[in-house]
Amino acid sequence: MAKTNSGNFFEDYSIGQVIEHAVPRTVGEGERALYHALYPARHALYSSDMFAADSGLEGSPIDDLAAFHVVFGKTVPDVSLNAVANLGYAEGRWLRPVYPGDTLRSVSEVIGLKQNSNGKTGVVWVRTRGLNQMEEVVLEYVRWVMVRKRDLDAPAPETVVPELKGVIPADELVIPEGLDFSTYDFSLAGEPHRWGDYEVGEQIDHVDGVTIEEAEHMIATRLWQNTAKVHFDATFRPDGQRLIYGGHIISMARALSFNGLANAQMIVGLNGGAHANPCFSGLTVKAWSEVLDKAETSAPGVGAVRLRLVATSGGDAFTLKGEDGKYLPHVLLDLDYWALMPL
Amino acid sequence: MAKTNSGNFFEDYSIGQVIEHAVPRTVGEGERALYHALYPARHALYSSDMFAADSGLEGSPIDDLAAFHVVFGKTVPDVSLNAVANLGYAEGRWLRPVYPGDTLRSVSEVIGLKQNSNGKTGVVWVRTRGLNQMEEVVLEYVRWVMVRKRDLDAPAPETVVPELKGVIPADELVIPEGLDFSTYDFSLAGEPHRWGDYEVGEQIDHVDGVTIEEAEHMIATRLWQNTAKVHFDATFRPDGQRLIYGGHIISMARALSFNGLANAQMIVGLNGGAHANPCFSGLTVKAWSEVLDKAETSAPGVGAVRLRLVATSGGDAFTLKGEDGKYLPHVLLDLDYWALMPL
Amino acid sequence: MAKTNSGNFFEDYSIGQVIEHAVPRTVGEGERALYHALYPARHALYSSDMFAADSGLEGSPIDDLAAFHVVFGKTVPDVSLNAVANLGYAEGRWLRPVYPGDTLRSVSEVIGLKQNSNGKTGVVWVRTRGLNQMEEVVLEYVRWVMVRKRDLDAPAPETVVPELKGVIPADELVIPEGLDFSTYDFSLAGEPHRWGDYEVGEQIDHVDGVTIEEAEHMIATRLWQNTAKVHFDATFRPDGQRLIYGGHIISMARALSFNGLANAQMIVGLNGGAHANPCFSGLTVKAWSEVLDKAETSAPGVGAVRLRLVATSGGDAFTLKGEDGKYLPHVLLDLDYWALMPL
Repeated sequence: MAKTNSGNFFEDYSIGQVIEHAVPRTVGEGERALYHALYPARHALYSSDMFAADSGLEGSPIDDLAAFHVVFGKTVPDVSLNAVANLGYAEGRWLRPVYPGDTLRSVSEVIGLKQNSNGKTGVVWVRTRGLNQMEEVVLEYVRWVMVRKRDLDAPAPETVVPELKGVIPADELVIPEGLDFSTYDFSLAGEPHRWGDYEVGEQIDHVDGVTIEEAEHMIATRLWQNTAKVHFDATFRPDGQRLIYGGHIISMARALSFNGLANAQMIVGLNGGAHANPCFSGLTVKAWSEVLDKAETSAPGVGAVRLRLVATSGGDAFTLKGEDGKYLPHVLLDLDYWALMPL
Repeated sequence: MAKTNSGNFFEDYSIGQVIEHAVPRTVGEGERALYHALYPARHALYSSDMFAADSGLEGSPIDDLAAFHVVFGKTVPDVSLNAVANLGYAEGRWLRPVYPGDTLRSVSEVIGLKQNSNGKTGVVWVRTRGLNQMEEVVLEYVRWVMVRKRDLDAPAPETVVPELKGVIPADELVIPEGLDFSTYDFSLAGEPHRWGDYEVGEQIDHVDGVTIEEAEHMIATRLWQNTAKVHFDATFRPDGQRLIYGGHIISMARALSFNGLANAQMIVGLNGGAHANPCFSGLTVKAWSEVLDKAETSAPGVGAVRLRLVATSGGDAFTLKGEDGKYLPHVLLDLDYWALMPL
Repeated sequence: MAKTNSGNFFEDYSIGQVIEHAVPRTVGEGERALYHALYPARHALYSSDMFAADSGLEGSPIDDLAAFHVVFGKTVPDVSLNAVANLGYAEGRWLRPVYPGDTLRSVSEVIGLKQNSNGKTGVVWVRTRGLNQMEEVVLEYVRWVMVRKRDLDAPAPETVVPELKGVIPADELVIPEGLDFSTYDFSLAGEPHRWGDYEVGEQIDHVDGVTIEEAEHMIATRLWQNTAKVHFDATFRPDGQRLIYGGHIISMARALSFNGLANAQMIVGLNGGAHANPCFSGLTVKAWSEVLDKAETSAPGVGAVRLRLVATSGGDAFTLKGEDGKYLPHVLLDLDYWALMPL
């Protein structure tokens, strides 16, 4: 019997199925340092234990996206090894900060199934939860992927398409316990712009760019124990290129957005996201943002902003889709998220 | 007087000579994170403090091969600066886990000497021990290298060829104190295959591949403070290529072997090993394994497997040597080791 | 209003102005591990907690240059975003070791201004101090940069050129509290050469070389949160090359100098420095040193050496300037510093 994991195929999933993903991971200071070495991450809450303590937290948490990548990475061997495409994200919420020393694992539940009309593939929806060593959920999200069938003659399952919120209502966002921005130090944080300074509809060109290197995206992707072949093996694709993990682009764009959104400190919600075009080594990633919405929260001095974050490989800022409604070729990522910001 | 280290030459060694290698190193969470970022390492015992605690250890140890590389790296300035070739390993045993915060140093004893018939070089055998800050031996191994003579007229030493065990008997393997796999969680570990599921003679193709990058092998090799020129200086070799540290291939292959050997958690013995062909940046490393032997141990739920681990730069899995008995050109590494696995 | 930081221009500075730089940073074991992975750093005091404890310190500090880079990196968005050139360093002193867990921030004071005769640029001198979470100054230095004017019609400020010491007198060097080299272990440190073995005028070729990789210099530079575009964005310069952060060359050369100066353990003073020529990926960095001066200190067993450290991209060691007094094209760095060494 083959001992290697050949992954799940479409007919292996069933509604309500719970998958306990393998290899829990203790994240620590090393992972934090690497995150800051791989991305131009500068949000003060994740850079300084003192700044975090002054904001009511016990210390500087692991970056929200680092926690996301760790949780996501664990699902790859079970969910996306035979995936043709990562179709979308929804209902992502960060529920509790992850601190150095925490051990994370992931559990997914299959919440939707729909065989495609070609009979060769199907769409699988899973709701994934990341848990810490106390079995507390630290984050959750839904993603859906198109997966190949192993046996084309396998019967199609009953179609179940989950109802997903297009946007998480602001009052369902979870603010970390104790978070308090009422004595927020804008000078230390790097920019003077507070929640009240941003207007819905406002667009921000983050100006800076980073050219992508093979060694960097592989180091990052392995750090999350996401070992999908396509990111590491130059002999795997006919064109000899390694496809870059979409999460690398998310983190790169988010870090670049510091320049203009230095005070959008914590990510608390992921409303949706599309990896519009693949990214390869040698491209230079830039980013722009748009303020989609604003909301107040119950925490002292803390407001929420809903942001569109777009990563590009060049081209004019603020361009997104063509007349045909499709993403323009230079758009790599279109992400819709909620962040917390001082009032 | 030149202040730089020109290394030892063949005539500088004598039987019984003890070399205290320089620059002790404290290894911590940072080294652990880097190891997991540089290699697709996923063995649960080294990834999760919780999993390690559930296996009877005080926490997740530094990866066995990381500990090996640190100990090995310290010997390079004294043993292999003028080496023409690394000829072999034997009698390697891991005697005690290394935990974050431990400080390692290395001591070698010369146990064999044999001048070559050409009079220009000789073979030196050393037994190296890695010690922690408590002066406890954490691992030991023998290696032998071919070293240049400084002075071709220097007299040949008396030939002493040490008797080395071709294979470490299973009852000489040291099981970490407290190790207990009787409540082992195969689901969290990533694969269902237990000790009883592997048969002697069984071969496993680990399927995945990683393309080698200059930045990655240099970061790894420096992490072990192995600063041999040939790995870092593109102007050193006539072909402008940097030779990749053999230990990088060992770690890469071992990490790739997770896919099929996820439960071969701890390395406890190194019976032998050959770096069959040099590796350079741009090659894609793959790996296959063969079960050479199995043995029971005295620890609860813990079995031992003796494995051949072969790293290649392509070619068919399970091919090793040509009709002439020489390694095929695509074979990079042929390693023989003992690992611990749940019964 | 644009939310992105466009940096300060020459007319934005005034004598006596104090700039509190943004984004404090907690440095820990991860940063230490990365430093040792990015540079061939082997000085024992920074590698082993035991060696540091035996030298009277509480543990192994963060490398002096890592601390420098963190402090320096924070000044970039305020001081050198619109800089045409980094002109010099002076009066640099390390005042207190930085330990894992410390949180650093930077504060600069403008101490000199001089508009250039072309009316388009001016020189700004700042004295920068790095502070830890106790508000203790851990290091300080002066640097001066040539900065563009935003408005060419802005009036020139009164010229103030600070008087700076060409060399820090040995009795103004600060020796870390408790430092004691009287029981220094030369064997563990890697070389037998003590303070008394070095003569003023002595030159040392450090022999080894490291070829520069894009991924490595970017990882290093980001680690210090120095996000100047020119280091990361291959589309920024017309030649498509990423300019390497000068601090990367400083750290590389210093680490290479281990081979011959293994006992020049701690950097305590920076007398001056010039980035003689730009460095790009693909070049191989080598280094040589010259002993410029020696001094005794009040600490037991501790002497000071003043060293010139020259980094090159090849060429003959010990060559520096041409007949025209200008740096030769292969010279990358000419640094003048004080280090502490066992007597």
